Amino acid sequence: MIKKSPTAAVLLIGDELLSGRTRDINLQQIASYLAPLGIPVRETRIVPDVEDEIVEAVNSLRVKYTYVFTTGGIGPTHDDITADAIAKAFGVEISEHPEVTAMLAKRYEEMGTDYTPARRRMARIPHGAQIVANPVSGAPGFQTGNVFTLAGVPSVARAMLEDIGPRLETGAVIHKITIRGRGLREGDIAEPLGALAKEMPDVALGSYPWFRGIGDNGVHLVASTIQENLIPLITDKLEAIISATGVQPERVEDANA
Amino acid sequence: MIKKSPTAAVLLIGDELLSGRTRDINLQQIASYLAPLGIPVRETRIVPDVEDEIVEAVNSLRVKYTYVFTTGGIGPTHDDITADAIAKAFGVEISEHPEVTAMLAKRYEEMGTDYTPARRRMARIPHGAQIVANPVSGAPGFQTGNVFTLAGVPSVARAMLEDIGPRLETGAVIHKITIRGRGLREGDIAEPLGALAKEMPDVALGSYPWFRGIGDNGVHLVASTIQENLIPLITDKLEAIISATGVQPERVEDANA
Repeated sequence: MIKKSPTAAVLLIGDELLSGRTRDINLQQIASYLAPLGIPVRETRIVPDVEDEIVEAVNSLRVKYTYVFTTGGIGPTHDDITADAIAKAFGVEISEHPEVTAMLAKRYEEMGTDYTPARRRMARIPHGAQIVANPVSGAPGFQTGNVFTLAGVPSVARAMLEDIGPRLETGAVIHKITIRGRGLREGDIAEPLGALAKEMPDVALGSYPWFRGIGDNGVHLVASTIQENLIPLITDKLEAIISATGVQPERVEDANA
Repeated sequence: MIKKSPTAAVLLIGDELLSGRTRDINLQQIASYLAPLGIPVRETRIVPDVEDEIVEAVNSLRVKYTYVFTTGGIGPTHDDITADAIAKAFGVEISEHPEVTAMLAKRYEEMGTDYTPARRRMARIPHGAQIVANPVSGAPGFQTGNVFTLAGVPSVARAMLEDIGPRLETGAVIHKITIRGRGLREGDIAEPLGALAKEMPDVALGSYPWFRGIGDNGVHLVASTIQENLIPLITDKLEAIISATGVQPERVEDANA
């Protein structure tokens, strides 16, 4: 029997992700961290620094997916409202966590930095939450039920995932192969690809065209399956589909290259 | 009286955005296109190539925001299911649009390419929808009520926005200034920044720390307001807040740099 996989959603919080000023990288690094654990990200939302929007998104995602990962809004400034929003979403109180306060006070003392009221805000944790360690900059994230609240700074979010990993139930790992056809057009392979998708229902087949200009276009075909033994067969079939058009198929490790 | 601004949501469709294989750029280019029109993006969702998920997201976003922009899933392959999902979301039929079919047939004939059943799929448009021109690769997007359905390929999505622009109701443009403090820590400016946010309620103040490693860290302060005349004053105040910490403030044009 194949184990049913846990699922994840990612909630990215911050006005500047929506305005286009900042291009998010946290979704990619969370998805890449979870993939080898067999936990696919099934939905992502980006909301502004507005409490009601955060509360609504958290409550809608946490009942639908096994895990929710939020990033952003847990710093010391006035626009950092995520911790309060999470407390509100769970209907719990929030206050300074004694151990976190002690840890931050010690850290700032060692740095010769004042532990100001703004910095104390970073010790405010929803009641009942577990701490998520932040080895990079000290101020922790936290876990409230199935919701993990991480920093928005990518290097900090990445470090926090290491502390979270052991707490997660793992699932069936999805194996992937990507084949590239330079100059290939989707319309040239759509029929045999669709037929193959029907023939192999245990494999998800995706077709991703790129077009950066004349002469720099093509298609990436991606096959995903939890049945690793199907990978050689599906690779041959995808290569044959591309070859039949006269295009030389190429296997790619990093399809973003 | 200040005009109430229209709002937008972006719905990015595609398994590979969620898996981390592809890093989205369409949100940024849609937000950047809409900003000078005074249409802020207020929410973004990313969903997989699953019809029910697309339908649910479209229906939840289209009642909440003035406009919804979707990207992805309108090509010729079996995993391109967005047009059907939009039709389902609006409860309308979908079939080949006579003018689009004629246009594509002519285009492929000129290219010496077969107009196959798969390519004909790209002429399937929800009934009642208006066409959105695609000058890059031919197959159009479409507008269904307040929902605009664009291609996922960034160069095509960008071109489609040009055709949509004149259809949009514009709002009050948001003016922005970004000041950088290299080496600055958020905790050093959180109190005066919070006080300034209270003092100037018509200005949204955001604080965005970066930390790429020791010596490559700092904070971007971003002020946003529809009152352009406040920009010089707020710039002075933000620079003064940074200067008070001993850090030299820098004005930045492109905060991603």
